Amino acid sequence: MTVRPTLAVVGATGAVGTVLLQILSQHADIWGEIRLIASPRSAGRKLAVRGEEVEVLALSEDVFEGVDVAVFDVPDDVSAQWAPIAAAKGAVVVDNSAAFRMDPDVPLVVPEVNPHAVRVRPRGIVSVPNCTTLSMIVSVGALHAEFGLRELVVSSYQAVSGAGLAGIAALREQLKLVAGTELGTTPGDVRRAVGDATGPFPEPVALNVVPWVGSVADDGWSSEEMKIRGESRKILDRPDLRVSATCVRVPVVTTHSLAVHARFENEITVERAYEILSTSPGVVLFDNPAAGEFPTPADVVGTDPTWVGRVRRSLDDAFGLEFFVCGDNLRKGSALNAAQIAELIAAEWSAS
Amino acid sequence: MTVRPTLAVVGATGAVGTVLLQILSQHADIWGEIRLIASPRSAGRKLAVRGEEVEVLALSEDVFEGVDVAVFDVPDDVSAQWAPIAAAKGAVVVDNSAAFRMDPDVPLVVPEVNPHAVRVRPRGIVSVPNCTTLSMIVSVGALHAEFGLRELVVSSYQAVSGAGLAGIAALREQLKLVAGTELGTTPGDVRRAVGDATGPFPEPVALNVVPWVGSVADDGWSSEEMKIRGESRKILDRPDLRVSATCVRVPVVTTHSLAVHARFENEITVERAYEILSTSPGVVLFDNPAAGEFPTPADVVGTDPTWVGRVRRSLDDAFGLEFFVCGDNLRKGSALNAAQIAELIAAEWSAS
Repeated sequence: MTVRPTLAVVGATGAVGTVLLQILSQHADIWGEIRLIASPRSAGRKLAVRGEEVEVLALSEDVFEGVDVAVFDVPDDVSAQWAPIAAAKGAVVVDNSAAFRMDPDVPLVVPEVNPHAVRVRPRGIVSVPNCTTLSMIVSVGALHAEFGLRELVVSSYQAVSGAGLAGIAALREQLKLVAGTELGTTPGDVRRAVGDATGPFPEPVALNVVPWVGSVADDGWSSEEMKIRGESRKILDRPDLRVSATCVRVPVVTTHSLAVHARFENEITVERAYEILSTSPGVVLFDNPAAGEFPTPADVVGTDPTWVGRVRRSLDDAFGLEFFVCGDNLRKGSALNAAQIAELIAAEWSAS
Repeated sequence: MTVRPTLAVVGATGAVGTVLLQILSQHADIWGEIRLIASPRSAGRKLAVRGEEVEVLALSEDVFEGVDVAVFDVPDDVSAQWAPIAAAKGAVVVDNSAAFRMDPDVPLVVPEVNPHAVRVRPRGIVSVPNCTTLSMIVSVGALHAEFGLRELVVSSYQAVSGAGLAGIAALREQLKLVAGTELGTTPGDVRRAVGDATGPFPEPVALNVVPWVGSVADDGWSSEEMKIRGESRKILDRPDLRVSATCVRVPVVTTHSLAVHARFENEITVERAYEILSTSPGVVLFDNPAAGEFPTPADVVGTDPTWVGRVRRSLDDAFGLEFFVCGDNLRKGSALNAAQIAELIAAEWSAS
């Protein structure tokens, strides 16, 4: 009889945790115990996993006893403190936070792109990329394998759930405040109507777009933009990749979109790009504007793959390709990618 | 006593026409008669200009009798038919449509960038660029004059009023349908809630972004994306400029935004870019993210200038600059630019 590995989900009650429990309930059931962990505030709540009610335990050192794989979806500082504790207890940690992503001793893994990287994890920690990087990198990685990527210029259209449940709540509240009004026509009218209901965002997102995501990094860049650059380089193992990202929040609940301009070492044909995108695992090519076919968040939300459309060769550059991607930031953008990594580790564990 | 020129506004009842009448009422009063013209359906309505009620006349050949300058804001096919008729009657036509923009005998004018071009108009027609081009070109043109532009990669965040009053009505209706719901979490839920209230757009815009603006052009490009390329080249007189644009509709009422990646012939410094942007007519530099300062449509709507923020040098390219612009698509994006051109022509007329 096979003994199945024990999985811990740390941050089980959050936006990503909730989706992770759904995914674990839908995927092949490879786990023995699934232990749910959250802050003491949420301890004692019961959540459904695999059709059973499971009680949430408070985060503590002891709670990692006997855990084989622990998926963390908690703020950076909580991961920074607790992931090494879980690892010291013998769990392999799959961490969704930014705390370890750029640590050279922590692999940054996208199973469709660099699955091999998961095996070398000196700290016992594997990082999940940022949701914005993840929303494009499966398609970008597939094209890179064929054409050799040199440069990315990307602009994001990021959903409010990237800021968690508080982000969703803020947008819902703001939408109520602006619906049925004539707002959005004079300077500041939306800001005054929204008042202090901005939630985790620096400006109203309803009837607006906000060109700022994350914290202040050097030279005018945002932390989110720097993550896309650093993480893309690390995942693709191209430390000299040129990356310019502009990150913008839009009034969408869930699913990040990106307009991607990519330059490659080799000349592009749209035909070959189509072949690659239509056969790559985790990618759906949806690209026929004349028939009204291009991905939008409203159609992509709740699905697993990265949807790619608007594929066209740069008009003035035979080495350039333009495309538009949509990916559910709570699924492939975090929970699904974490589940896939956990499953890769479980497969090792079962094979050993 | 000076005789003042007669101005005709063709399309006076539309979204742009309405803003144009406001602008004419606010600017220095250089016009004699202002004649309002629209389709026969709108004839007889009275609209306020310069504090007076003026009756709208039906479009006809005779209505251009005695007109010195005629600003057209009507669909492409109406301009194509009627602008030459107005010109034959002796009016200089300032046309907001796409009908003549790429005609080599029609100048495409942005007064802050290429005011000299207005003087050479063999067909008696001057074109106003597309609202998306206009929302960025004043800032881009100022930087080009200093650094020499080689390449633009731009992604747009376009407001619904770019599709006229029908676009605004569709978004308002959709916002009512999604407010207070839990929509935006499963594939197609927004589409089903919006039903046939998509208005002039191919997909719902509430809780969504739509990576398609305009009609189908060659090789997967949209007409809007091709306009940005062709018009930028013509305005800047750089026929070899490399341009890659991705145009995306967002749930904003008015004010287009663009994320701009620009490469120049000369090395960039942010200090010099700041000097240029902070002293260029028609541009407001608003760029201090640490203090929460970056332009958003909600703050820019209803104002005349292009607002520029998020200015930073490309991290991997000393010749590259990134920035984010917001411009009111009904003001500088069309009505204001048209009024400025009409005023340039009136100044000629007065001087002659």
